[in-house]
Amino acid sequence: MGRVVVEVMPKPEILDPQGKAVVGALPRLGFTQFSGVRQGKRFELEVDGEVTPEILAAAQEAAVTLLSNPVIEDVVSVAEAEPAEVTGEASGAPVGA
Amino acid sequence: MGRVVVEVMPKPEILDPQGKAVVGALPRLGFTQFSGVRQGKRFELEVDGEVTPEILAAAQEAAVTLLSNPVIEDVVSVAEAEPAEVTGEASGAPVGA
Repeated sequence: MGRVVVEVMPKPEILDPQGKAVVGALPRLGFTQFSGVRQGKRFELEVDGEVTPEILAAAQEAAVTLLSNPVIEDVVSVAEAEPAEVTGEASGAPVGA
Repeated sequence: MGRVVVEVMPKPEILDPQGKAVVGALPRLGFTQFSGVRQGKRFELEVDGEVTPEILAAAQEAAVTLLSNPVIEDVVSVAEAEPAEVTGEASGAPVGA
């Protein structure tokens, strides 16, 4: 079973109230490292078989026509999910912790 | 200027009405390749300097405490943005188009 990840972000010139809310809340929680936040969407599309180039092309078309609003959003990535990237398996995020 | 990307998805056992709406709409638009959809969130956190391990650790903590609800969501990835991954630059998505 394959999985395609589609990532959508608000265009840079578009106001992002959710991101603004987050950037306002961060310093109150002690996180002063971040100067800006943008919030977008991440979709996982499941396919029964392998992720073929045709599937990726269909996902790209779906990303532009259904998953994003091209007036205010950019599709930043359409790619096969990496094995560790599947929801529910805590990925070995490269954190210096 | 660096950028950290945080990705959050609903836990697999949690109902995802947005994903359900998308999976219902796809076949109506002719996309019959996809058997399931989950919708999550993608954040871009901007930092003024380099993305250091300390910044990534802070982003991981912010991801768990502010950007996600640990009862219903998983943080699937916390990583430095790849150069091409910056919003607004149409990434060369590996699509067979």
